[in-house]
Amino acid sequence: MTPRTASLTAAPADRDRGLRPRHDNALLPRIARSAATRQGAGPQTAEVHTWLDERRRSHRFHVERIPFAQLDNWSFDGDTGNLVHDSGRFFTVEGLRVTVDEGPYREWHQPIIRQPEVGILGILAKEFDGVLHFLMQAKMEPGNPNLVQLSPTVQATRSNYTKVHKGAAVKYVEHFTRPAPHRIIADVLQSEHGSWFFRKSNRNMIVETTEPVPLDDDFCWLTLGQIGELLHSDNVVNMDARTVLSCVPYRDEQPGALHSDTELLSWFTAERSRHDVRAEPLPLAGLPSWNRGESSIDHAEGRYFSVVAVRVQADSREVTGWTQPLFEPRARGVTAFLIRRFGDVPHVLVQARVEGGFLDTVELGPTVQCTPAAHAHLPAEDRPPFLDDVLNARASFPSRISYEAVHSEEGGRFRNAESRHLLVEADEATAPLDPPAGFRWVTPGQLTSLVRHNHYVNVQARTLLACLNATGTRA
Amino acid sequence: MTPRTASLTAAPADRDRGLRPRHDNALLPRIARSAATRQGAGPQTAEVHTWLDERRRSHRFHVERIPFAQLDNWSFDGDTGNLVHDSGRFFTVEGLRVTVDEGPYREWHQPIIRQPEVGILGILAKEFDGVLHFLMQAKMEPGNPNLVQLSPTVQATRSNYTKVHKGAAVKYVEHFTRPAPHRIIADVLQSEHGSWFFRKSNRNMIVETTEPVPLDDDFCWLTLGQIGELLHSDNVVNMDARTVLSCVPYRDEQPGALHSDTELLSWFTAERSRHDVRAEPLPLAGLPSWNRGESSIDHAEGRYFSVVAVRVQADSREVTGWTQPLFEPRARGVTAFLIRRFGDVPHVLVQARVEGGFLDTVELGPTVQCTPAAHAHLPAEDRPPFLDDVLNARASFPSRISYEAVHSEEGGRFRNAESRHLLVEADEATAPLDPPAGFRWVTPGQLTSLVRHNHYVNVQARTLLACLNATGTRA
Repeated sequence: MTPRTASLTAAPADRDRGLRPRHDNALLPRIARSAATRQGAGPQTAEVHTWLDERRRSHRFHVERIPFAQLDNWSFDGDTGNLVHDSGRFFTVEGLRVTVDEGPYREWHQPIIRQPEVGILGILAKEFDGVLHFLMQAKMEPGNPNLVQLSPTVQATRSNYTKVHKGAAVKYVEHFTRPAPHRIIADVLQSEHGSWFFRKSNRNMIVETTEPVPLDDDFCWLTLGQIGELLHSDNVVNMDARTVLSCVPYRDEQPGALHSDTELLSWFTAERSRHDVRAEPLPLAGLPSWNRGESSIDHAEGRYFSVVAVRVQADSREVTGWTQPLFEPRARGVTAFLIRRFGDVPHVLVQARVEGGFLDTVELGPTVQCTPAAHAHLPAEDRPPFLDDVLNARASFPSRISYEAVHSEEGGRFRNAESRHLLVEADEATAPLDPPAGFRWVTPGQLTSLVRHNHYVNVQARTLLACLNATGTRA
Repeated sequence: MTPRTASLTAAPADRDRGLRPRHDNALLPRIARSAATRQGAGPQTAEVHTWLDERRRSHRFHVERIPFAQLDNWSFDGDTGNLVHDSGRFFTVEGLRVTVDEGPYREWHQPIIRQPEVGILGILAKEFDGVLHFLMQAKMEPGNPNLVQLSPTVQATRSNYTKVHKGAAVKYVEHFTRPAPHRIIADVLQSEHGSWFFRKSNRNMIVETTEPVPLDDDFCWLTLGQIGELLHSDNVVNMDARTVLSCVPYRDEQPGALHSDTELLSWFTAERSRHDVRAEPLPLAGLPSWNRGESSIDHAEGRYFSVVAVRVQADSREVTGWTQPLFEPRARGVTAFLIRRFGDVPHVLVQARVEGGFLDTVELGPTVQCTPAAHAHLPAEDRPPFLDDVLNARASFPSRISYEAVHSEEGGRFRNAESRHLLVEADEATAPLDPPAGFRWVTPGQLTSLVRHNHYVNVQARTLLACLNATGTRA
């Protein structure tokens, strides 16, 4: 052994180095205070809508559908027919074959987006007047129905922030690429849509700063209470913001749950173990049941979604104009949690969902997550469980709807991909204490614990968790 | 809406249904008591060695190397050259190409085991005289250097317990396929060796029962204290038992850690995000740098491992004789944690390791995990960090070694795959407070929290965590 290690006398730093508590209990009341604050240091909540309109107008965005042949730097690969960018980066549209071991569909083919890079979705937090505020961006995404929505402070693929596209630097990104470790509120890899992406994850981050932060025109500081109010409006808070917000570590103030955390994890492990899912990337060319036209790739029976192309003209983004492919669903989706109170503690009914693009077979999704039109042709017994209960509650028992808003999915990849998001009060007749196989009652507090870790909760359920927090259902 | 859901009056069950606490605090002192108990209701600890010898003798096991041509029901596929079983089940040996973005090796090819099924590794627990005991099995595995070691109660691939091989039923398996939810102590999917398996996970379970359990000849009940003592002997507790034991939820009695849990998770997320790892299965035939002979597949420079075949004769296993391939390392490995106390709290130095077969890029491994012989030809700067410190401590400063034993890897897949496992006390000169990139100081309590979840801690670090618990380093 070298002399430098001949003595085990502790260096002074050993003794003096302070330990941290494993859990930052001081954070929880600060989160609660921000959630309870409806009037912050930035704009009034009502002003955010007009501010978004103003940002929309001032940038003169224009997005139009184009034929694939008019895509710049994108083309169908001669061998595979995959839709690829000349740089080999950003993302590709390929084919996928999926086989599963249960349900009405046991095998299918579909186009899928492959994007191996891990992007950053980051919200910067800072205290003003003793209340945590979150820096939200008015961001244009070409697939958004209204183009501009509230997004995280930073929403960047690695290609973005390493400047593959040679555009401007991503604003505020340095807070997330070099964060102060003890100022991190959340930092976790989460899946994106398992039906549209092949094993895509993004890094969801919330980082606090105590430094002065110069405020750009497209940004504003809002409290959690304000963002919660905005989550009640259609198409205001974008998907990237919703998934990051789902990671806010709200305190669980409930005395317990139907199932302990160990039981819940065990059930999840069993669900992951019992499914046999095979997902195999294939060339997009010749993909069964899908037809490529000049302007779209469509399912033979007109279901699910199409692959389309758009041209974007704008002057506010990292680059001022571009063309790109997008996935465009054929109809609006429904995304809902059924809610019941057991021992006065709210529980939501999650489903262990198999999606072909998940990294690991199964994640927890909403009670209902589907596009009703895609199932209209199926016999009743093959329709998604609880879908009719949700639709009926909306039609006939509006008092049971404790939350409802239309939100759209990531506008950088999906065009007009809207779903109606609902929280629906249920009872024993609709949603029994002992639910069907693959479903489980969990508390919002348990979901909050799970979203600290990778790949437990899918993106749709994370949106609903953010909505739940926004309703104060937890309180 | 149907009439059955017209009323939201809660059924009586809603109000009466008891909630559980999310965390079972009553379990923790029961774990501690079992760990403190060195004399249980079953055999004395010293008797376990003689009992294992006796089981070994009574079954007259015989294992011999054979040429591949003598394998029954196994053959090299005509197209791919992959080594496959006629049933299409169990496992296959295929090729893999891995590219990574740092380190001395940026690209390599290797044989790899593919086994998509999730197996069960389960230990049954039961109280005797108020102390938790764990049902351990004397199990023969053909790759074990001494054939018979202590294994979990159940160690079964899905092929095993669904009887693809038409052997006898797996004993006690019903405790794990239909466990009572509130008797589950641990249940989590964990990775196996990322250098030898392609994305293999097993379900690690500990389930308590209060029912009478008939005791088979090859089984015995031991306390955690007894198993901890046995972990100090070479090649007694097998890998499957060690990984399940690492999931025992010991209480963390320490006041804190160098890094809070949120900081630790954030560092882990950053490590997973920054690496660009591509692992691509390839046909075994023609795999660069590997040569197939009549009795083995070997690396061109004689490094790493060989693929070999064995014939097994025995009368105690689910079937009485069979042939199979095994991976056989070329030399003994070293697996070690460096340990330091900060603020009197023990910390171990983990490394965020890239292994080609991991499902998700990176898991936390030991400070040192390598086969020294495989790196002997490398210049000093490319040798694994801290390897020389561990070897030197062993040679010159034995008082710094707080734990040492040789353990072998899964004898059902690996032949004589031994590693020396060490816990080595370090100081600022050897292992600084601010370690190199990719390393982090964490407490055993933090590792215990992480092993509740999938794919944070690799199998070698889980073995060392079980050894740490066995030394009482935590206390």
